[in-house]
Amino acid sequence: MSVYSVREELKPSGLNGISDEQINDHWNLYVGYVNNVNALNNQLADMRGNGEGGTAAYTDRRRRFGFEYDGMVLHEYYFGNLKAGVDMNHDGPFGALVAESFGSVDAWAEDFKTCGKSRGIGWTITYYDPVTGQVNNHFIQHHEEGHISGFIPLVVMDCWEHAWMVDHGAGGRGAYIDAVVDNLNWGLIDERTKAAQEGKVLNRF
Amino acid sequence: MSVYSVREELKPSGLNGISDEQINDHWNLYVGYVNNVNALNNQLADMRGNGEGGTAAYTDRRRRFGFEYDGMVLHEYYFGNLKAGVDMNHDGPFGALVAESFGSVDAWAEDFKTCGKSRGIGWTITYYDPVTGQVNNHFIQHHEEGHISGFIPLVVMDCWEHAWMVDHGAGGRGAYIDAVVDNLNWGLIDERTKAAQEGKVLNRF
Amino acid sequence: MSVYSVREELKPSGLNGISDEQINDHWNLYVGYVNNVNALNNQLADMRGNGEGGTAAYTDRRRRFGFEYDGMVLHEYYFGNLKAGVDMNHDGPFGALVAESFGSVDAWAEDFKTCGKSRGIGWTITYYDPVTGQVNNHFIQHHEEGHISGFIPLVVMDCWEHAWMVDHGAGGRGAYIDAVVDNLNWGLIDERTKAAQEGKVLNRF
Amino acid sequence: MSVYSVREELKPSGLNGISDEQINDHWNLYVGYVNNVNALNNQLADMRGNGEGGTAAYTDRRRRFGFEYDGMVLHEYYFGNLKAGVDMNHDGPFGALVAESFGSVDAWAEDFKTCGKSRGIGWTITYYDPVTGQVNNHFIQHHEEGHISGFIPLVVMDCWEHAWMVDHGAGGRGAYIDAVVDNLNWGLIDERTKAAQEGKVLNRF
Repeated sequence: MSVYSVREELKPSGLNGISDEQINDHWNLYVGYVNNVNALNNQLADMRGNGEGGTAAYTDRRRRFGFEYDGMVLHEYYFGNLKAGVDMNHDGPFGALVAESFGSVDAWAEDFKTCGKSRGIGWTITYYDPVTGQVNNHFIQHHEEGHISGFIPLVVMDCWEHAWMVDHGAGGRGAYIDAVVDNLNWGLIDERTKAAQEGKVLNRF
Repeated sequence: MSVYSVREELKPSGLNGISDEQINDHWNLYVGYVNNVNALNNQLADMRGNGEGGTAAYTDRRRRFGFEYDGMVLHEYYFGNLKAGVDMNHDGPFGALVAESFGSVDAWAEDFKTCGKSRGIGWTITYYDPVTGQVNNHFIQHHEEGHISGFIPLVVMDCWEHAWMVDHGAGGRGAYIDAVVDNLNWGLIDERTKAAQEGKVLNRF
Repeated sequence: MSVYSVREELKPSGLNGISDEQINDHWNLYVGYVNNVNALNNQLADMRGNGEGGTAAYTDRRRRFGFEYDGMVLHEYYFGNLKAGVDMNHDGPFGALVAESFGSVDAWAEDFKTCGKSRGIGWTITYYDPVTGQVNNHFIQHHEEGHISGFIPLVVMDCWEHAWMVDHGAGGRGAYIDAVVDNLNWGLIDERTKAAQEGKVLNRF
Repeated sequence: MSVYSVREELKPSGLNGISDEQINDHWNLYVGYVNNVNALNNQLADMRGNGEGGTAAYTDRRRRFGFEYDGMVLHEYYFGNLKAGVDMNHDGPFGALVAESFGSVDAWAEDFKTCGKSRGIGWTITYYDPVTGQVNNHFIQHHEEGHISGFIPLVVMDCWEHAWMVDHGAGGRGAYIDAVVDNLNWGLIDERTKAAQEGKVLNRF
């Protein structure tokens, strides 16, 4: 049984400064996560059915949820929030929100970029706290270390090496991060923000 | 500026098998996390104001978001979902939901308990995927390793040693986990489930 | 087959400020790690024998090496370097070594203690680099996050909650850390230092 | 003050199946770690000198030791154990050692390769326990998660994406791992083994 399927509609193309070849190489990794989430869930259900739900092997397989699920959903948020040629909407809900915390949208972008250059690989996410309405930039190590339970992701940037190495080699992190911020899909980010302000997690697009 | 404050209304008492002394000792740790989240946010804002937003010291302090924020919010979810004398509602939204994935509420509880005995310290959380409606039990190591971005927490159990050592010493994990499941606040868990099914993260209570 | 056995000769007693009851409660956890290391190795050997050496279940079980092995060996280093009534040898090899990096033994001790109060649970270890002879205090999160490959441990302090909660409850970390430093076995630490300066890892005692 | 310097003599070239371009791109990352270890140590010494040794900023900077030091030393072990055209010495100390645990050198190599394909990025290391003489293949996540304190590394393989992406793109992990095992420097690995059997960590070459 496959609960999850590849979300083809999220695949970006024609971005500025991120080649289609880079996106294609990256997309294949995402497909792998979808397959692994399905396989992991099926294997755990089988093990429970066989009376192996209390074994160390079961428990250790279950520990992989964080890596596999986040490997899937973060790529969906990420590909979904990339689109060429969209100007930042400074006066929309996201702009207004981050201006409160950071002073201006530009100051948020600066902080988001430096967050993306944190040592090690992972993700940079602007997270929204649905209780206080507060927003922060969080560095997530690997796929699964650092998410805040119940916080809502608004902007998601992949900072694994595979995200830039086709275009730039190992040294291209800075150029890649600039390109991501230039290709953010502000219409979607404003939609995510409005939903978050009602306490809602938007479907992952 | 203190964005976060201690949520006194969430403090449980009179639980079965978890002493008030244990809860009081534990509560003091929660208060520490609230103070640390406020202090961390204030320090980062000060550093940005002083032009230190791009320094290694700033970046390394920001890496502590996961630990401090999750240390705060997970305790709020946890204390909030503990209440003495509430019978499990097998026919409510949560019971119906987990019966789909696990076969029955009892099978969910069994899986939740074995998850709680995973080697190492952390949390056990029943997480809801707002896109597929699928539910799973996740072991979270430490406070911040293993949360799924955008998933909604329905049931939260602390599995750090401080949660049981006042009552039981180092060896009391099993007895403590049984007690937690006996003291779950099913009315609240059903409310969380209904909200999640509308894509909403309930305020942390 | 049990490759590892409990090292009874390492068990301290009569310490100042750390009760025998606390040590006994703690010791039982160490015994659990020895058993788990043996069980894990046996299970992996069985799986290889059954042609399951390439399965996800095998790979995920193997990922537990860090937690189980470090859970065993760190407790051996720790119990081994505790002894009541030993005065610090300021002029021995360890004292001379840390004076180079920290200015004095007292400055090393101050740094070691603040390291022990790092947020989260884990260990504090004074590690020696056999290539440069340089020494530093390292905070190790959990059992397995932060060790330096090939560096040699000289002083090891447990900073998990189980190390102090019997004596002090959740809030006793500071008092416990002071007690550890008062009970260090300086004769052994000097032996470890001399061995390390010859590039050797002393047997874990 | 720069305690550490780049070890130019360790840089491999002319490997089979790993291009010099790939090695050059990779080497630059190693140089970055050397610089970062020096900078981190200098900054911490400065902070101690300024009375900031007890601050949160100091503590959080110190938490980076694991990442930066391991990022440096693991690359030294790795580049050092790569050399073209060396046949595996089945009858040397390493071959004899792994035959005990795995049945044969080929079975060790098979296990080492599957370890290298563990989900996520990191390192594969054959570690030696100087107390028991036992050997195992360990997957190290990131640079710093999973090392065993006081164990001695014998064979070290980088499994970060930067190790293969220049040659192969994201999908080339399997081909890369085969190439690493074909280019192992068996003379050095036997030397490391002999030293380990005397309880010694060889200088990182």
